[in-house]
Amino acid sequence: MKLAICEQFGIDFPLFAFSHCRDVVAAVTNAGGFGVLGATAYTPEQLDRELSWIDDHVGGRPYGADIIVPAKFEGKGENLSTGQLADRIPAETKDFVAKLLAEHDIEPEERPRLGGSSLSGDTGRDLLDVAMSHPIKLVANALGVPPDYMIEAAGERGIPVAALVGAREHAVKQVNAGVDLIIAQGTEAGGHCGEVSTLVLVPEVLEAVEATGKRVPVLAAGGIVTGRQMAAAVAMGADGAWTGSVWLTTEEAETAPHTQQKMLAASSRDTVRSAGRTGKPSRQLVSDWTDAWLPHDGGARPLPLPLQSMLVEPVLRRIDGLASQGHSGAQALSTYFVGQGVGLMNKVKPAREVVREFIEDYLAAAERLSGTLPD
Amino acid sequence: MKLAICEQFGIDFPLFAFSHCRDVVAAVTNAGGFGVLGATAYTPEQLDRELSWIDDHVGGRPYGADIIVPAKFEGKGENLSTGQLADRIPAETKDFVAKLLAEHDIEPEERPRLGGSSLSGDTGRDLLDVAMSHPIKLVANALGVPPDYMIEAAGERGIPVAALVGAREHAVKQVNAGVDLIIAQGTEAGGHCGEVSTLVLVPEVLEAVEATGKRVPVLAAGGIVTGRQMAAAVAMGADGAWTGSVWLTTEEAETAPHTQQKMLAASSRDTVRSAGRTGKPSRQLVSDWTDAWLPHDGGARPLPLPLQSMLVEPVLRRIDGLASQGHSGAQALSTYFVGQGVGLMNKVKPAREVVREFIEDYLAAAERLSGTLPD
Repeated sequence: MKLAICEQFGIDFPLFAFSHCRDVVAAVTNAGGFGVLGATAYTPEQLDRELSWIDDHVGGRPYGADIIVPAKFEGKGENLSTGQLADRIPAETKDFVAKLLAEHDIEPEERPRLGGSSLSGDTGRDLLDVAMSHPIKLVANALGVPPDYMIEAAGERGIPVAALVGAREHAVKQVNAGVDLIIAQGTEAGGHCGEVSTLVLVPEVLEAVEATGKRVPVLAAGGIVTGRQMAAAVAMGADGAWTGSVWLTTEEAETAPHTQQKMLAASSRDTVRSAGRTGKPSRQLVSDWTDAWLPHDGGARPLPLPLQSMLVEPVLRRIDGLASQGHSGAQALSTYFVGQGVGLMNKVKPAREVVREFIEDYLAAAERLSGTLPD
Repeated sequence: MKLAICEQFGIDFPLFAFSHCRDVVAAVTNAGGFGVLGATAYTPEQLDRELSWIDDHVGGRPYGADIIVPAKFEGKGENLSTGQLADRIPAETKDFVAKLLAEHDIEPEERPRLGGSSLSGDTGRDLLDVAMSHPIKLVANALGVPPDYMIEAAGERGIPVAALVGAREHAVKQVNAGVDLIIAQGTEAGGHCGEVSTLVLVPEVLEAVEATGKRVPVLAAGGIVTGRQMAAAVAMGADGAWTGSVWLTTEEAETAPHTQQKMLAASSRDTVRSAGRTGKPSRQLVSDWTDAWLPHDGGARPLPLPLQSMLVEPVLRRIDGLASQGHSGAQALSTYFVGQGVGLMNKVKPAREVVREFIEDYLAAAERLSGTLPD
């Protein structure tokens, strides 16, 4: 496509694909888009291995890494160990989880394990160092303005820094902090998201970024799983699209089979914005789990970052394991991050095929719109 | 524009404008769009007067009327008088309202009046008869499948019936009931709305309507206050746009001045989907009023249609009156229906000018998108 961003990033089609799965990242990059590996769940050693694999499979084509370093989290500046953080998880929240599992016929574990504190921001620096030892062409960050060390280290190496924002004011803050690429992500997005819809947020952010006087490209995100939606965003002035959910039902994705089935069957109304997974509102498949964390009498309040995910990620992995063995209580509880676009995701396809369909659909949408113009 | 819907409705530009204000309806129709008068708040006599005025001012150009006949409401089928309905308003909800007013330094009225039961659907038939005695070219309905008498009476006179939907399944139901025009309205819309965003809902509804085998045009609604957003919807396959909020800050609108000021100052994050006005979730400006109806300890649950609006509409009109006199408590409480697009509504303009800007912006968006196509 004839868009400045294609030249800037050395791509044919400005479709950015966020995925935790290296195969998806490589497939999208090889198909002319831009794959971005979600790095936060990896240890530095694991991340190094994944990125080396990608290097071996993309033949020098561009890809990036996404490292979440939250601007605010429990224990920030206190230099706490994971154990010290764990001590801040209240007993009543643990009891609430145990009761929820019991109600779904899931036995308590003798010594429930806690997850890592990757959402505490502590490991972000190590992951960044690993990522920058590979030929990445973008580093992305969510949950606030990237830390200075990210902007500085990336700047020294000429690697653009991208930031996800859910509000106009946040975009301005990011641009002023030196971010090179803004991702305006609407409330319909899977994972962490704000409250403003993509159709409103994108023109609002474009206007606000333009008013800063700096020329920073803006990608549209949230709900985009087809080329026609991407074309809609570009018609509004966006430079391209940032996507995530659509890759969860590709052949390459490591999505648990029962979760993939839920996604294929889901309508756009089967997601909810809930703090019950990470402590910050994120969009997920509706399930007994997300219902349990809705505000209600006798309910528990989700804990702040990173405590909620330390407590619940191992539980949700256990639930996924049981669900895949056919445990009905676990199947009712199981959930995963996904956006409202899930209503349009009805078939498992290779990632390469998704890119091809995006391009065709984008072209058809552009022709449809220009076909309405008076002679 | 070269769109089949323009020929079908005898318009130049498929911009449908819902407004309670006859001046806006006439101005949009005269500027080449399609004005639709929101009729529900009128008595039959008032409506007749408003439509006659429009007839005198549009020189035979097409316009329509919107009559809300909810498919479900308290007392349906019981043939209750307004007084009998009023008896179903619980004392504790009245007390909650009185307490909220007192907290904002607003004296209780000696004999608080109740509003009419227009949202009970009882007056819908009379309003429809009046509307159809005028040369209307569309009758629209929200809150469920239109009653048979509406579809039949309109069908006999060759008047297309439109229905607003917030979910794919509802669109299919409406098409099967014989509706001629579907308005797919996203969660970012002002007034009654569902949970799915416009960017996701429009392609979902288009797909579902196409699968019925019937050729029913689909308008996009929700958050659309600029031509570039309308172009985005048309790129996705919509036949045009249905708008409401954007007319509230026109010169012609009867929006209370302090409310218009709130709207001009508001960002897209200053709205909330709340049942505190009509009993069904509708998007409004955030205020102390909408905060009060959020679920919380000691809070009151909104009543079902039409009881909530019978109780609160006269109160909100009183609040508006006090707010316009500078009463600070009333100003904190005052609110009105508006969508997230309010963040892009920053200047009072004549309605005619809004249409002109929509057209220009639409053309620029279409050119922007086609300019990205490879040679």
